[in-house]
Amino acid sequence: MELIGERINGMFKDIKEAILNKYPGPIEHWAVLQTKKGAHYLDINTGPTVTKEEQPAVMAWLVGVVQSVSPLPCCLDSTNPDAVEMGLKVHRGRAMINSTSADQWKMDIFFPLAAKYNARLIGLTMNEQGVPRDSAARVALAMELVVNADMHNLPMQNLYIDPLVLPVNVAQEHCPEVIEAIRQIKTLSDPAPKTIVGLSNVSQRCAERKLLNRTYLGMCMAAGLDAAILDVGDDMLVETAAATLVLLNKVVYCDAFLKTF
Amino acid sequence: MELIGERINGMFKDIKEAILNKYPGPIEHWAVLQTKKGAHYLDINTGPTVTKEEQPAVMAWLVGVVQSVSPLPCCLDSTNPDAVEMGLKVHRGRAMINSTSADQWKMDIFFPLAAKYNARLIGLTMNEQGVPRDSAARVALAMELVVNADMHNLPMQNLYIDPLVLPVNVAQEHCPEVIEAIRQIKTLSDPAPKTIVGLSNVSQRCAERKLLNRTYLGMCMAAGLDAAILDVGDDMLVETAAATLVLLNKVVYCDAFLKTF
Repeated sequence: MELIGERINGMFKDIKEAILNKYPGPIEHWAVLQTKKGAHYLDINTGPTVTKEEQPAVMAWLVGVVQSVSPLPCCLDSTNPDAVEMGLKVHRGRAMINSTSADQWKMDIFFPLAAKYNARLIGLTMNEQGVPRDSAARVALAMELVVNADMHNLPMQNLYIDPLVLPVNVAQEHCPEVIEAIRQIKTLSDPAPKTIVGLSNVSQRCAERKLLNRTYLGMCMAAGLDAAILDVGDDMLVETAAATLVLLNKVVYCDAFLKTF
Repeated sequence: MELIGERINGMFKDIKEAILNKYPGPIEHWAVLQTKKGAHYLDINTGPTVTKEEQPAVMAWLVGVVQSVSPLPCCLDSTNPDAVEMGLKVHRGRAMINSTSADQWKMDIFFPLAAKYNARLIGLTMNEQGVPRDSAARVALAMELVVNADMHNLPMQNLYIDPLVLPVNVAQEHCPEVIEAIRQIKTLSDPAPKTIVGLSNVSQRCAERKLLNRTYLGMCMAAGLDAAILDVGDDMLVETAAATLVLLNKVVYCDAFLKTF
């Protein structure tokens, strides 16, 4: 199970201000903290206030700041191929690209980019028609992502398919569909693509956010989830991930299973 | 999701002493408390210190004490058919019988008993050869239970199949097999039999028992679990059940979803 720290995102006020003022403090803080908390990747998103033209330079700056204080690889979170490529150029280690949709013109850009830089790539099960309403439509788009990985010589284990978690308070019927999509995506090829979710989406503007997040994480992992972008600072969430791996018999139980995670 | 309170069991010291002294206090206490905590059934087990000959009278006494302070039905937890029938005779409402194995001679006793008293019946996926090692063998025994329900005219929704949860610290490989068995058992017939687990078994003699219990509950519910015998006094466990039902889209989300559960 790969945990991707979600916190270095321009949607958060402290990160937004750090970017606007070119002040690395809060970015370094969250890079160090999430590394200590056990993240395997650090997601980096310039946020909505940076213009498209500024995004490449800001992405490169963020990668530099983060990797100056953390040994972790980054998950370059942008729909702008120029910003992603600028991040890839300065990145040390194997980056993850977050993300391409399942639109062919987008896949024709991002799959070659991932292959060129030996990066991992998150593929969303959505296209210009929007987010599918059920698991079957998600799996159909996942298959297009799998085919494209094959076409572009991206090793299947470098493709992370995201079936798109939506908030339970406005799109409740999607929650079980995403779980079923995860289960089916793991059967699409051999070796199978990886699966990933943006976990915190499930509880956007909900009461009891942490309870919903950790409960949904266990349910998704039981269906075969391989990775999640989440709040690694939420200790009970990380403990749930550890317990789930033990209960799936993927990590050997010992009384100190929490500490060894 | 049906929650069955596990606490009135002669394995617990206070209940054992209450039974030996014919002192109803602790039994009434746990009956009232578990009712308040939202249990749908109260499990009643005379425990290992009562002889087989004494079991029927003790079971009847326990049912009387419990139902004098709680409106809930009981889950008569004994492998002794005489004790179960004595409990059924004095029971008010629809009882649950816990349990028969999948041995034919046992099923020939317990299925007619359940049908006669219009009771629900828990059937274990085990026989004299022991507990199966994987999901496929569990499902094969589950099918025998389903066939017997049909033969003995027990409505399928009154059959609760228990795939036998074992402790993760000594039988870790069984944990995912039980989850897979739950998923498959729900496809055995239409209408499907119910599924049930004795949840606390998963964490017997483990560290972090409550974490393991609530995590496993969510995983089993995501696979189709209908009922569990558990510690209804564990608030975080009950909250996990509520959150899981919401995330499975079985209960409509509202901000007060915990309170309305």
